[in-house]
Amino acid sequence: MIRRSEGAGAEPPGRFDPVRIALAGLLRCHEPPIPESLARLVNGLGPVDAWSAIAHGTAPADVSTPIAPRLAGLDPAELNRRAIDDLHRARAAGAELIGPDDQDWPADTFAGLASLVPYDGCRTAAPPLALYRRGGRWPTDAGRAVSVVGSRSATAYGQRVATELGAGLATEGFTVVSGAAFGVDVAAHRGALYAGDQPGAPLPAGGVTVAVLACGIDRSYPVAHRALLDAAAACGSVVSEYPPGAVPARHRFLVRNRLIAALAAATVVVEAGRRSGSLNTATSAGSLGRQVLAVPGPVGSAMSVGCHDLIRDRRAELVTGARDVIGLVGPLRPAEPVHRPGDRATDGLDLVTSRVHEALPARGGAAVDEVAAEAGLPVPDVLGALAELEMRDLAARSGGTWRRSGASPDPACRA
Amino acid sequence: MIRRSEGAGAEPPGRFDPVRIALAGLLRCHEPPIPESLARLVNGLGPVDAWSAIAHGTAPADVSTPIAPRLAGLDPAELNRRAIDDLHRARAAGAELIGPDDQDWPADTFAGLASLVPYDGCRTAAPPLALYRRGGRWPTDAGRAVSVVGSRSATAYGQRVATELGAGLATEGFTVVSGAAFGVDVAAHRGALYAGDQPGAPLPAGGVTVAVLACGIDRSYPVAHRALLDAAAACGSVVSEYPPGAVPARHRFLVRNRLIAALAAATVVVEAGRRSGSLNTATSAGSLGRQVLAVPGPVGSAMSVGCHDLIRDRRAELVTGARDVIGLVGPLRPAEPVHRPGDRATDGLDLVTSRVHEALPARGGAAVDEVAAEAGLPVPDVLGALAELEMRDLAARSGGTWRRSGASPDPACRA
Repeated sequence: MIRRSEGAGAEPPGRFDPVRIALAGLLRCHEPPIPESLARLVNGLGPVDAWSAIAHGTAPADVSTPIAPRLAGLDPAELNRRAIDDLHRARAAGAELIGPDDQDWPADTFAGLASLVPYDGCRTAAPPLALYRRGGRWPTDAGRAVSVVGSRSATAYGQRVATELGAGLATEGFTVVSGAAFGVDVAAHRGALYAGDQPGAPLPAGGVTVAVLACGIDRSYPVAHRALLDAAAACGSVVSEYPPGAVPARHRFLVRNRLIAALAAATVVVEAGRRSGSLNTATSAGSLGRQVLAVPGPVGSAMSVGCHDLIRDRRAELVTGARDVIGLVGPLRPAEPVHRPGDRATDGLDLVTSRVHEALPARGGAAVDEVAAEAGLPVPDVLGALAELEMRDLAARSGGTWRRSGASPDPACRA
Repeated sequence: MIRRSEGAGAEPPGRFDPVRIALAGLLRCHEPPIPESLARLVNGLGPVDAWSAIAHGTAPADVSTPIAPRLAGLDPAELNRRAIDDLHRARAAGAELIGPDDQDWPADTFAGLASLVPYDGCRTAAPPLALYRRGGRWPTDAGRAVSVVGSRSATAYGQRVATELGAGLATEGFTVVSGAAFGVDVAAHRGALYAGDQPGAPLPAGGVTVAVLACGIDRSYPVAHRALLDAAAACGSVVSEYPPGAVPARHRFLVRNRLIAALAAATVVVEAGRRSGSLNTATSAGSLGRQVLAVPGPVGSAMSVGCHDLIRDRRAELVTGARDVIGLVGPLRPAEPVHRPGDRATDGLDLVTSRVHEALPARGGAAVDEVAAEAGLPVPDVLGALAELEMRDLAARSGGTWRRSGASPDPACRA
């Protein structure tokens, strides 16, 4: 039983390890969310043996029956070929397949999904077996992320609020999760991506945002958001539990929504009509024990009806902006250090240290009190931060002055 | 001890009964709210003997000390003369003085005020000893009234919402209570007064609204609202616990607010800045066990900050319009019949009977099914309503047809 892969991206080009091939094959077996029987088999045997049993037709009936339609008439070699094809297509799109054995798989984050009550005709809302992912930054700890969702046909007001929320949350170090759709979603992603451009923002330009797709990772949906998705992948990530090529479909949006809810400590609904899909995300968040928050709006606006219903029925707390959200979610917990290829050297710095790093001149040098003035922080805090930066090789001392060394903001973090 | 007056308006012109003179005198003794000692004396002796003791300087020290500044150097005759002057001035302004012995004094409504926790430096928030009132319709039962309050500098949005709330509540038979100020107050009053003009409204034109002043009943404050106050008096009432001539002052608005809160089952805050006086009304309503409701608005609007704070802190329920308010306040309870000089014959009709009365032709006649079609009601309901109207002499039968007899809507109910 092979359970541990060598880490995403470690395979030589054109070859994939058996775990990844098995996971790609398993993702093809059933429309997510998968039946409980399949989840049990994979948990019991591990993905490689589970996939082998399925491909060779030796899986128990309660597993093989629900997945039969997708496998009919395909021999093991053909099934493997298709799984490897998916991995190639994902790689061509700049994505990798990550699963529970990978270091930054958020097992705790997804654990709650197993007990999520069925909804919308889904028999189970099991955790995804694996996810295709473009980009490396995503919330391994839901406490460091906030989902911002809402209507595709958001008003100018809703778009403005979503942008400000995305920017405000990203500025304070939270990952902003959403669904890349028109309206509220794209505004929230953009707000996060542009967060660092705000005057006085303490973090390097470009906040972290995660887009969860309801189609294959190789598709840009909606097409108009291709550049946004590229920027999200550069500064955060784009993820999907669907095989490459999968087309967006209404039921996929609803199923996808549970992942948006699970990935974050709170889901904020910015604008929602009475029947908006974002209310489904809010319901999932509530069922998962995550906080459900809603932004009020003008009472005459049909786009605020869903939010007002949530607040009135005490299914959501009222929030008016990022400050309210952070007040409810609690201060940012320190990140668990996850070292991945492509990580920036400045990742994992706390807010104060980041601010000091940003305040350092790239050339020449600045005295401690000049750095303190630039960062707007007291000298003792600056001294502590400089010590850490020096230790991490991100600041260099020369005589009585300091300058920056190491990573710079990523210019690709723009949508 | 004389406790019962012969009823407001029953005195011959130029003469006032001793109870009313005593109440007018007592209202002059202390800035409202009155000290507990004074309230106890009046409750114990009745207003006439209490006033006599005060005027003759025989009241106990705990009563006479706090009221001494207002009485200094005035003999009993002069004190009586001033009280009678007040009654004359009120009468000249079209107002009467009503007190706890009058038939429609809302004793239950005001009872809670005695236990209202002190606020804003007031030692006590005792019920008013009496009130000057222009116009006869007001909520003898708080369950039939809703207060609508908010910022003087309301936005166009707030004014629109307040107008719609006033109209919606009045259309459903609720009395709309407010403070006649600029902004939300006047919009709510106007909405109520124009309620009957809305297409499909079931009640005769002109809802009932009550304006509670923070100055003498003989003053129109603000001056721009003179016509509004006249209309409120014609269709509802204008009330004040201050002697005629009293000028509006900041502390009077705060003290007055407790009456706005007490007179209604619920207080709706439409728009409020963070330090709006309407939040003080909301606090009083909450302390009195009345419902506190708030209307959300755009999160960027400073005029909605107070409302959002109330909702977020669970000090108010979110409401988006009259329907929400009525859903929380509960359906209108049947009015206790209060017969006063000047009441309209159609007062006290239930909604269905009012609607049938309105549907009757003033001249000629209409068959029952024509009346039913006009009223938009089923024939059996119409037959029941016609029987009641006939009994009250508000409908006349002739052969197989019906026509209206009796009162018509009051054309003065317009601001």
